[in-house]
Amino acid sequence: MSQLIGIDIGGTKILGIVVDEDDPAVVQAEFRVPTPAGADNVLDAIAKVARELSVPLTSVGVGIAGLVDRDGVLQSAPNLPNLHQVPVREELFHRLGCSVAVDNDATCAAWGEHIAGAARGIPDATCITLGTGIGTGLIAGGEVIRGAHGFGGEAGHMVVDPAGPHCPCGRRGCWERMASGSGLGRLAREVAEAGRLDRVLELAGGELSALRGEHVAQAATEGDSQALDLLRAFAWWVALGLANLVTLLDSGIVVIGGGLVEIGEPLMSPIRDHYGNLVMAHDQRADVRVEPAQLGERAGAIGAALLGGRRAGR
Amino acid sequence: MSQLIGIDIGGTKILGIVVDEDDPAVVQAEFRVPTPAGADNVLDAIAKVARELSVPLTSVGVGIAGLVDRDGVLQSAPNLPNLHQVPVREELFHRLGCSVAVDNDATCAAWGEHIAGAARGIPDATCITLGTGIGTGLIAGGEVIRGAHGFGGEAGHMVVDPAGPHCPCGRRGCWERMASGSGLGRLAREVAEAGRLDRVLELAGGELSALRGEHVAQAATEGDSQALDLLRAFAWWVALGLANLVTLLDSGIVVIGGGLVEIGEPLMSPIRDHYGNLVMAHDQRADVRVEPAQLGERAGAIGAALLGGRRAGR
Repeated sequence: MSQLIGIDIGGTKILGIVVDEDDPAVVQAEFRVPTPAGADNVLDAIAKVARELSVPLTSVGVGIAGLVDRDGVLQSAPNLPNLHQVPVREELFHRLGCSVAVDNDATCAAWGEHIAGAARGIPDATCITLGTGIGTGLIAGGEVIRGAHGFGGEAGHMVVDPAGPHCPCGRRGCWERMASGSGLGRLAREVAEAGRLDRVLELAGGELSALRGEHVAQAATEGDSQALDLLRAFAWWVALGLANLVTLLDSGIVVIGGGLVEIGEPLMSPIRDHYGNLVMAHDQRADVRVEPAQLGERAGAIGAALLGGRRAGR
Repeated sequence: MSQLIGIDIGGTKILGIVVDEDDPAVVQAEFRVPTPAGADNVLDAIAKVARELSVPLTSVGVGIAGLVDRDGVLQSAPNLPNLHQVPVREELFHRLGCSVAVDNDATCAAWGEHIAGAARGIPDATCITLGTGIGTGLIAGGEVIRGAHGFGGEAGHMVVDPAGPHCPCGRRGCWERMASGSGLGRLAREVAEAGRLDRVLELAGGELSALRGEHVAQAATEGDSQALDLLRAFAWWVALGLANLVTLLDSGIVVIGGGLVEIGEPLMSPIRDHYGNLVMAHDQRADVRVEPAQLGERAGAIGAALLGGRRAGR
């Protein structure tokens, strides 16, 4: 029995958890603080959260939104611009004096689901997080696909529609533009502008510019048929990217986490329908399920804890 | 020093080769026969080729265009319909009495390039074959991405343009429709119809319907500016799919084989230019090269030989 510390760093909060490596789905303790401004303050806050959870420390795993290279240096971090080019692993090692692993947050969440969640026991898994953007962690042959620099799994920036909307990354039609929470909001505003989304617009206070994915979700939960139709159209784009990933990687399961899965069946059901039509050779892999994630908002921290323990050789 | 037999099964010919495992890029002997009709005849021909190359046999590796499952059963084979659902590995084991590995031909070619060709020593590699269609083998962390059923690496059927042309697989805008030799032919016919491909059309005997990618290649080699412009437009689609794969897998190198690479720099140069603009976070992975394959038309057979030797535990 060994205790592992995992910490998920977001733009607004730092969430630390303790799990036992023998039963990592059960969070034994957690501690969270707001994300402060300034690189040193963030690093100090991470160290404080870790010490709050366990003394002495043997391993810490950290998940961060952004491109984390194999040395634990943050090479790109839109939500944490202060940490750009900061050698997070080295800095935390100096502060904590124990083994530290640093990974992309979606990679951590995927590893959590693979070891302790919906993809448990399935060596090839595509795990995505549908939030404001799309996070992705890809597991092949029981291992995370990290790639040459550590940046593996950025499926949100796979181009799926060259004529699609511009993406802050500089290209057009990235999957994230179409199939994330912000993609749902954009689609909803287009449809509402054409006058075909009455209840959803009402929930947004009648303000087109205030309309968000959450309003669609709420109207769909009420059974509003226009919202349900919109979710079905949106689900096509989610399914297209998932189908591409399974066509490429022949994943044995697809796991969807993040805020949008809380919509439940009104979203999951059309995703499954479209996915079945869009994936290549569906008949030959009819056993591939598209399932909601099991670890919820702590998936990233749990996966980070497991990757931290693994790096420490435990 | 150990001799390995590799056999590449195509719709028109069966190519067998012998390599030494210590220097597998050098083909020591080869033997080829036309692909006969009928499943039993094909299996007998493969066995004959193997015995022609080496007696006694210790291992044989076979590459086949199509979806080969983890048991060596051909689950889909558009070019070899007679072999559909045939347990090729088991049948060949009965005929040959030695260890037999059966894989997708593009997977074999990728493994060949990874062990003995352009991707040698690079653990994460995307290897594609641009011919009539697009074959793909993906290497991550030094291993082939096989996936849950063995179907990993079907990048040709990644959808890159939902409004694109129909694909025989039943979907629209598969990468293969846009970026293969037949995609080049389709694009050329469109442009020629609009009257902007004079020399290419002349090479096709003035017949629009006879116009193929080869005519574009020939005109480009002559320096025809219209053909070069067309190749640049075509290269954008090749680069788009490559950029998607590197964005997903963070490959350390991209290797392009198949008939189209014989065009050389008039195709490779615009592919590299577009790739640099299309891949996510290019600045953070500027070391990723896009290179022509080194093993030529024998890449599949060489890779099959190596995978066969590996399966036999050598």
